[in-house]
Amino acid sequence: MPLVVQKYGGTSVADPERINAVADHIARTRRHGSDVVVVVSAMGKTTDDLIRLASDINDVPPGREMDMLITAGERIAMSALAMAVTAKGVPAASFTGSQAGIISDTVHTKAKILEVRGDRLRQALAEGKVPIVGGAQGVSTGNDVTFLGRGGSDTTAVALAAALGADECEIYTDVTGVFTADPRLVPGARRLAKVSFEEMLEMCASGCPKPEMRSVEFARNHHVPLHVRSSFTWEPGTWVKEEDPSMEQAIISAVVHDTGEAKVTVTHVPDHPGIAARLFRSLADEHVNVDMIVQNVSLDGTTDISFTVPVADLVVGMEVCRAHAAEIGAADVLADSDIAKVSLIGAGMKTHPGIAATMFETLASEGVNIDMISTSPIRISCVVKADKVEQAVQALHDAFKLAG
Amino acid sequence: MPLVVQKYGGTSVADPERINAVADHIARTRRHGSDVVVVVSAMGKTTDDLIRLASDINDVPPGREMDMLITAGERIAMSALAMAVTAKGVPAASFTGSQAGIISDTVHTKAKILEVRGDRLRQALAEGKVPIVGGAQGVSTGNDVTFLGRGGSDTTAVALAAALGADECEIYTDVTGVFTADPRLVPGARRLAKVSFEEMLEMCASGCPKPEMRSVEFARNHHVPLHVRSSFTWEPGTWVKEEDPSMEQAIISAVVHDTGEAKVTVTHVPDHPGIAARLFRSLADEHVNVDMIVQNVSLDGTTDISFTVPVADLVVGMEVCRAHAAEIGAADVLADSDIAKVSLIGAGMKTHPGIAATMFETLASEGVNIDMISTSPIRISCVVKADKVEQAVQALHDAFKLAG
Repeated sequence: MPLVVQKYGGTSVADPERINAVADHIARTRRHGSDVVVVVSAMGKTTDDLIRLASDINDVPPGREMDMLITAGERIAMSALAMAVTAKGVPAASFTGSQAGIISDTVHTKAKILEVRGDRLRQALAEGKVPIVGGAQGVSTGNDVTFLGRGGSDTTAVALAAALGADECEIYTDVTGVFTADPRLVPGARRLAKVSFEEMLEMCASGCPKPEMRSVEFARNHHVPLHVRSSFTWEPGTWVKEEDPSMEQAIISAVVHDTGEAKVTVTHVPDHPGIAARLFRSLADEHVNVDMIVQNVSLDGTTDISFTVPVADLVVGMEVCRAHAAEIGAADVLADSDIAKVSLIGAGMKTHPGIAATMFETLASEGVNIDMISTSPIRISCVVKADKVEQAVQALHDAFKLAG
Repeated sequence: MPLVVQKYGGTSVADPERINAVADHIARTRRHGSDVVVVVSAMGKTTDDLIRLASDINDVPPGREMDMLITAGERIAMSALAMAVTAKGVPAASFTGSQAGIISDTVHTKAKILEVRGDRLRQALAEGKVPIVGGAQGVSTGNDVTFLGRGGSDTTAVALAAALGADECEIYTDVTGVFTADPRLVPGARRLAKVSFEEMLEMCASGCPKPEMRSVEFARNHHVPLHVRSSFTWEPGTWVKEEDPSMEQAIISAVVHDTGEAKVTVTHVPDHPGIAARLFRSLADEHVNVDMIVQNVSLDGTTDISFTVPVADLVVGMEVCRAHAAEIGAADVLADSDIAKVSLIGAGMKTHPGIAATMFETLASEGVNIDMISTSPIRISCVVKADKVEQAVQALHDAFKLAG
């Protein structure tokens, strides 16, 4: 019998009506002849509520206790969903990450999966039950409850699919799939029927919010086909899988934007070997997540170094740079949080020269100034002013005829 | 170093301010030189909310899933409280029932503790931490999460106190102790400084809502002194412990009432051996919790059998009796839910004759009719009309001079 892992996000199980609709679909999948393992996130805004409770009690809550607290959210959702599936006449049993055999490292609030045992899930399947597993949680090698981080339920689902040898992993969410651009910005955006793992990873890194990047990496490494689809319409969504050499590749798959980053510029840095290394090592030590880095060639023996960081890391990033500015002989440290990153992604880019030129021409003809540029073999990203992002995304979507 | 187990009920940790106040008291107890193990119930009305969620989803939720769902409540409270204690500079770590080594049977929604291992708690204490344990939960011999039932946190606390060899177990609640009568009915009711385990058990069985009866039995069997006190005023409360032969006993300790029962009467039952046995065996088989039983001597070869049951069991109890009425040759089955039970409890009763007579005279002089009577060596209970209960309790409290 085929086995499918289905992951349902928080909006998919936000209230008893939604839980009931999801239970119907699980029962339907079983009737159609598949075994099902379910992974579920916390209901609606539960995780936010629990985080707020913690911050009301302790400004710096201990990670071990934070994980114990947050995982209560998935525990509620998984047992409620198991009750709903049972009410449809399909036997079901809920399992915590620990019970499901998801062994993680000991890094609280963002633990990584080390091993998936899955014996109890295999036994539940053998008994004809639908196992329903709390997402984004595990038990550490030190026997403590761990949380895999926001969005970690996708990773749980893919890890279970890999461990149990599932035929596919369905990621149910509140959108119908992965789009050529954010439909809120581009009304003509088209749902992609299929993207490769590599394209999806570049899209995740460029600001596409779903699915979670770690889960895509895990799926690629373990050859688990993902199906990103809607739990509101149940229509077929977007397949994320290995590149299919027999099919002609689209040159460009999508335009992705990200307004969650800020730019830091360190000016008049002496152009000596090792200066940049010292700065970025210090940023890494403080867990500042640096994305794009641009350094201009110097004429006067100094250079400006700019980089982008998530807005949440801006304050710490600025502090690190200011602390080093004097030491490395830099003139000043400037911040700009009024930026956006626009990225073109497409596996066909590798074999089609001129994509970058078309991108820059398109932005220029719209009067959009480019602040920073970075590229990979299948991606070109430009930093622009935040108030130009909608115009830039729409123009690129048109220029590359992504509406199809 | 002395060891105290402190149990905090739902109202004691209803919101972040209350959690903070409780954390202060835990830190204070440590400063005063005691090791502390904490047991905590779910915050405020969380358990009710979770039960409502379940009933919105499944009319008959499976017990295994119900226990998984409800225990999320204590998980939230225990991790939040651990964060609060840590914020006071006292190291703390939360533990689920399973992590604390509380092994139960497999009867979901009302599991019984079979064994307490407690190794992780001992280790946490050795590391200088305050272990904070989720109340009313354990792990079954079948490796499933179990709930010990409403009020089960008291039992968790006493079981841990016994297993860890604690010097005492403090039950913190929203009242200042155990009273000579319900202060809502009797304004002059007095807090008892001390009651014996036997008296407390009779009071629990007669309608005194706190502490939970099972926990008192456990405390008596394992010689754990209980201290029932308030987490709002922190003043000394009521000690529940072994009878102290050196102290003069109060003749009567308290008047307790219970309005949560109903009366069933089976009329004109043939007075043959085995008839009552058959009826009460059938009631037991349906888990109907029979309290008082009264059977009158028959004159015409038949008898009326009356008994009381919790109001929640009335419908099933009536069904069982109706099903047997024809078979045993009884005439009719009548129900009366408009009753209340008033009980006098006192260890000194054993050696002071005439207490029952005084009780009946007091009720008669108030015009309160007695419907049923049952006694134990240290208790006399009378069933009266529900609308007479306040008057009866006040009159008995006065007659036995319990205001002191």
